[in-house]
Amino acid sequence: MAELRFVPKSEFERLDALDLEPIARTALFATLCRINVLYLIARAGSGHIGSSFSSLDIVSWLYLNELGRGDRSSDRYFSSKGHDVPGLYAVLLATGAIPFDRIHTLRRLGGLPGHPDVATPGIVTNTGPLGMGISKAKGMILASRLQQEKIRVFVMTGDGELQEGQLWESLATAAHRQMGELTVLVDHNKVQSDTHVSSVSDLGDLQQKFAAFGWLTARCDGHDLRSLSRVLKRLNRTTARPKVVVCDTIKGRGVSFMEHTAMTDADRFYRFHSGAPDDETYAAALSELQTAANEALAMVDADPLQLDHTTRLRPVVPSSVQRLVPAYSRALLRQAERHPEIVALDADLVLDTGLIPFQERYPERFIECGIAEQDMVSQAGGLALTGFLPVVHSFACFLSTRPNEQIYNNATERTRIIYVGSLAGLLPGGPGHSHQSVRDIAALNGIPGLVMLEPSCEAEVELAVDWCVQAAGESCYLRLVSIPYPVPYQLPPDYSLQPGRGVVLRDGADAVLLGYGPIMLTEAWRAADLLAREHDMGLRVVNLPWLNQVDQEWLREVVRGFNRIYTLDNHYVAGGQGQMIAATLARIGLAAGVEPQLLGVTGIPACGQNDEVLRAHGLDAAGIASAILSGATESVSLGARRE
Amino acid sequence: MAELRFVPKSEFERLDALDLEPIARTALFATLCRINVLYLIARAGSGHIGSSFSSLDIVSWLYLNELGRGDRSSDRYFSSKGHDVPGLYAVLLATGAIPFDRIHTLRRLGGLPGHPDVATPGIVTNTGPLGMGISKAKGMILASRLQQEKIRVFVMTGDGELQEGQLWESLATAAHRQMGELTVLVDHNKVQSDTHVSSVSDLGDLQQKFAAFGWLTARCDGHDLRSLSRVLKRLNRTTARPKVVVCDTIKGRGVSFMEHTAMTDADRFYRFHSGAPDDETYAAALSELQTAANEALAMVDADPLQLDHTTRLRPVVPSSVQRLVPAYSRALLRQAERHPEIVALDADLVLDTGLIPFQERYPERFIECGIAEQDMVSQAGGLALTGFLPVVHSFACFLSTRPNEQIYNNATERTRIIYVGSLAGLLPGGPGHSHQSVRDIAALNGIPGLVMLEPSCEAEVELAVDWCVQAAGESCYLRLVSIPYPVPYQLPPDYSLQPGRGVVLRDGADAVLLGYGPIMLTEAWRAADLLAREHDMGLRVVNLPWLNQVDQEWLREVVRGFNRIYTLDNHYVAGGQGQMIAATLARIGLAAGVEPQLLGVTGIPACGQNDEVLRAHGLDAAGIASAILSGATESVSLGARRE
Repeated sequence: MAELRFVPKSEFERLDALDLEPIARTALFATLCRINVLYLIARAGSGHIGSSFSSLDIVSWLYLNELGRGDRSSDRYFSSKGHDVPGLYAVLLATGAIPFDRIHTLRRLGGLPGHPDVATPGIVTNTGPLGMGISKAKGMILASRLQQEKIRVFVMTGDGELQEGQLWESLATAAHRQMGELTVLVDHNKVQSDTHVSSVSDLGDLQQKFAAFGWLTARCDGHDLRSLSRVLKRLNRTTARPKVVVCDTIKGRGVSFMEHTAMTDADRFYRFHSGAPDDETYAAALSELQTAANEALAMVDADPLQLDHTTRLRPVVPSSVQRLVPAYSRALLRQAERHPEIVALDADLVLDTGLIPFQERYPERFIECGIAEQDMVSQAGGLALTGFLPVVHSFACFLSTRPNEQIYNNATERTRIIYVGSLAGLLPGGPGHSHQSVRDIAALNGIPGLVMLEPSCEAEVELAVDWCVQAAGESCYLRLVSIPYPVPYQLPPDYSLQPGRGVVLRDGADAVLLGYGPIMLTEAWRAADLLAREHDMGLRVVNLPWLNQVDQEWLREVVRGFNRIYTLDNHYVAGGQGQMIAATLARIGLAAGVEPQLLGVTGIPACGQNDEVLRAHGLDAAGIASAILSGATESVSLGARRE
Repeated sequence: MAELRFVPKSEFERLDALDLEPIARTALFATLCRINVLYLIARAGSGHIGSSFSSLDIVSWLYLNELGRGDRSSDRYFSSKGHDVPGLYAVLLATGAIPFDRIHTLRRLGGLPGHPDVATPGIVTNTGPLGMGISKAKGMILASRLQQEKIRVFVMTGDGELQEGQLWESLATAAHRQMGELTVLVDHNKVQSDTHVSSVSDLGDLQQKFAAFGWLTARCDGHDLRSLSRVLKRLNRTTARPKVVVCDTIKGRGVSFMEHTAMTDADRFYRFHSGAPDDETYAAALSELQTAANEALAMVDADPLQLDHTTRLRPVVPSSVQRLVPAYSRALLRQAERHPEIVALDADLVLDTGLIPFQERYPERFIECGIAEQDMVSQAGGLALTGFLPVVHSFACFLSTRPNEQIYNNATERTRIIYVGSLAGLLPGGPGHSHQSVRDIAALNGIPGLVMLEPSCEAEVELAVDWCVQAAGESCYLRLVSIPYPVPYQLPPDYSLQPGRGVVLRDGADAVLLGYGPIMLTEAWRAADLLAREHDMGLRVVNLPWLNQVDQEWLREVVRGFNRIYTLDNHYVAGGQGQMIAATLARIGLAAGVEPQLLGVTGIPACGQNDEVLRAHGLDAAGIASAILSGATESVSLGARRE
């Protein structure tokens, strides 16, 4: 079991006391923060190293030398991209803004969320969904003007993030309103989630672009603090124009083999965008950073760094799991062989959406759109008008919302498009509410003719893809859970997909529960085990993969004789499948006294380890069993939240 | 009763036969088309004159001289802004692409829709929601490349439209993929819906902006056909870069007093963006255009123009109507006086959202964001974080969808924001499906903590605004019907808003109907009249202004004793209030055999006059009465569609 090491608060205090020039001090501070970023992410089991490292010199400079200097107490900094927040946490922990013992809590319930949230001290706004940062800053500046306060707002953006339309949408009025209070720092590390920005959608001359929107622009090496400080000083003199500094940075800066400049031609993808390093990688990276820190300390005759340590937490990975995204990859490829009209569109998530096999096999039918979901969906519309069958991919949280109007516009053309939203539902719980897609069914519910379905296991993924391509008359939304899950059930051998009809996975005589997807059906199954074992109670568990339709006859049959009916959404109760089922139950006429209960997500999704998050929402097996045991009576003390 | 005049097909044929140079022919053709645009819009009672006129010389040139020349049979043209479609219709009618007798059918059921729809001959894609056009064109071009076909796509955009983020989002990959097939024509008429583009959000140097994104750029006078033709010829030589022509045009071009250049300093708003001219304006405009055409004809010794005519249709405007938007204006102003923390944000719809009184009274608390809904909503987020209460305005169709993810992001910060979506529901039926907001409740249903409500009359608007500002604990979505409606009911004098509870507007013993908003409650009331008169049947009509919550006790009370229960949505049945009520009815336990029926919109909203549209969806009084008479039995022959 590997040890994980971090720089304790006392060492930052020692750094404070050393007699150092601002630049040397900041560089050393940033190196210590990198060690803590490595710790945060290794302990959490996931997080964004590359982007935290590329931006850390800049963030360190701002916090140690720029923000709040003189009468600048209301200066604000935040990162628009948000996934570089481990770097910011490291800085805020070191400077005391965040209580230091939270260093052990990244992506844990009640700890430091995977993306920034205002509930954390020092975090001024929620980011993570890309492109919103400058707009948010403008709102803060308008507020400060109304309050006749003097503020400055520094906003970090990614460079891949510059592909988002809202970013460009936000530029013009900042210039129009002469927002000299605003300084944008582009962390121009050249690499977006999957690969080089230039190969996805070349940014061209960034300074020229911002200048064309009326901004004052500058460019510097984002790791050369002298250069950065000079640029900031110069820009500060101009008060009537918003400013942008294009900071040339290196993704993974600080650890030789994590630096994107170390990628060879053979490396198609950058390896350290997200995820946690393994033991060996961790040790090698730590060693490099420690050496660098000790060299800097030796220069001023200071003692070497003293690190604290904890033990690495290892999630238990079950031996047999269902992996829906790889199953989707295979199914799409099979359909693409038969259907030359299939084209696949991606928004910089080729690794996460399972598109690599398709891209390799059909490069000409693969369209990488970059982080530009609205553009992607409307391009799909254009393709569909011309006889193609576009299959559009992104995370469910983004795909259902950012291009929501574009999906409707396509629907009004009555063409066929398949939308595939992965990372669906409450889990993984680590990235936090910006990525937990628990409102996509609702958001797409009013798209005319859109069939929504979510498979519960690998076998059903194949059936679902086949159905969407071959049987669907209109457009489809295929909702996919991304995390591997140990699924205890199997579909019957003769199972086939029939619109609005599901299948009994497990029988039981006392209550019936309808749900969908691998996570909730598994938790329901485990709840059934628990109820059978401890309460001699039989729970029928039913898989209904159709999210916005249910066959009335089938439903009547599957609930017949039960007076305890439950639905279970991996989604908000509001606008979820359960509400649709309950409305249908009403319409087909229930016996008196049958009062279906709707289980699912309420409130803002909790961030944490997967088991913590399920428990927090009362949606783990124990929570579901407890909700069922409580029967039809309402009780606020239940773990499982009700509508 | 005024006569309306149009240029018949035979006159276009006469023009064809005249011996004219391309430029003179096109100019005369465009003048004739302007006469028909005037006819189309006057007959329809609404439409966009200014933008149709500013773009008509360009569109005429393309259709008469550019598209489909030589082996260019697969050339395509469309307008991204879409509201200039009367101009395009005039061209397509003249060239025979659209059967000529459809000239009488603008914004009528089964006729020419208010915004482009692919069901109309010659229309290649649905536009109207702004900023999607270039993306759509890129999809068509990708398709043509896969099919190894050679196409060119010409896309018209507005200039106000350039404030939309998707437009900029779409530029980079067009250059990256070397889309020389694409030519964008910016109808740079300097005036967006409300007023001068420059005063909303100055566009700066447009050529420089496009050039910074890698586009080949040119600029010309969009009414100087010689200049336009030369520019197009020159650009055509470059095959590996997307091209943009910034066309300087005059909004309302062709009729002196409609030209935006005729606006004086006293004119705050341009008067001919949308709406129909009155009799006098119509006659004056027609006379100018006719004179211009006859002068051109005289130059080549041709006979004067022979116009056909029809009679103007006059909608019956009832004498006493409820106007919710002006009532909203007054209520907001009253609250703003008491609450200095209120700031109002607008996206270029200050006339339509009722914000002018606020803007005049509190200019410093009014924030015009331009056509940039995502930016607007995130700015509101920034303001809310700083202690202000932002009230955010747009049409419901745009506000609920374009910034859907931004609204969620704000919600996760647990701040308070009031979103006000006007133009809600199925009516007005003229603008067509891009503007008919019948899925906004669904789209916002999964925003945590968002209270949604829709007032049914002016008095309830005031109560609702007061409630949102003073009583609501979290954010609100206020949904407003924009068209004046003759409302037959009154709220009881002691009525107050209580979350989840509504009010019986009219009693009846045989069936109960729950709905909201002035249109559906009025139609339900009229249905009740009809049922009472012709079938001796009593219908209780209940107003429930709360769209996503219902108080269980109140609901139990209001439906007690009824075994025929109806809900009525001015929205899709899917994700609407009815589904929420039905789910709640199931959960509180109905008597056996009570099977609530959900009435509302299904399918793609029909375009037409208001009464036509209600009838087409079975949601006029007769349709509702017929649905109720048919009882609980399902019948496909019913006008009123069921879920």
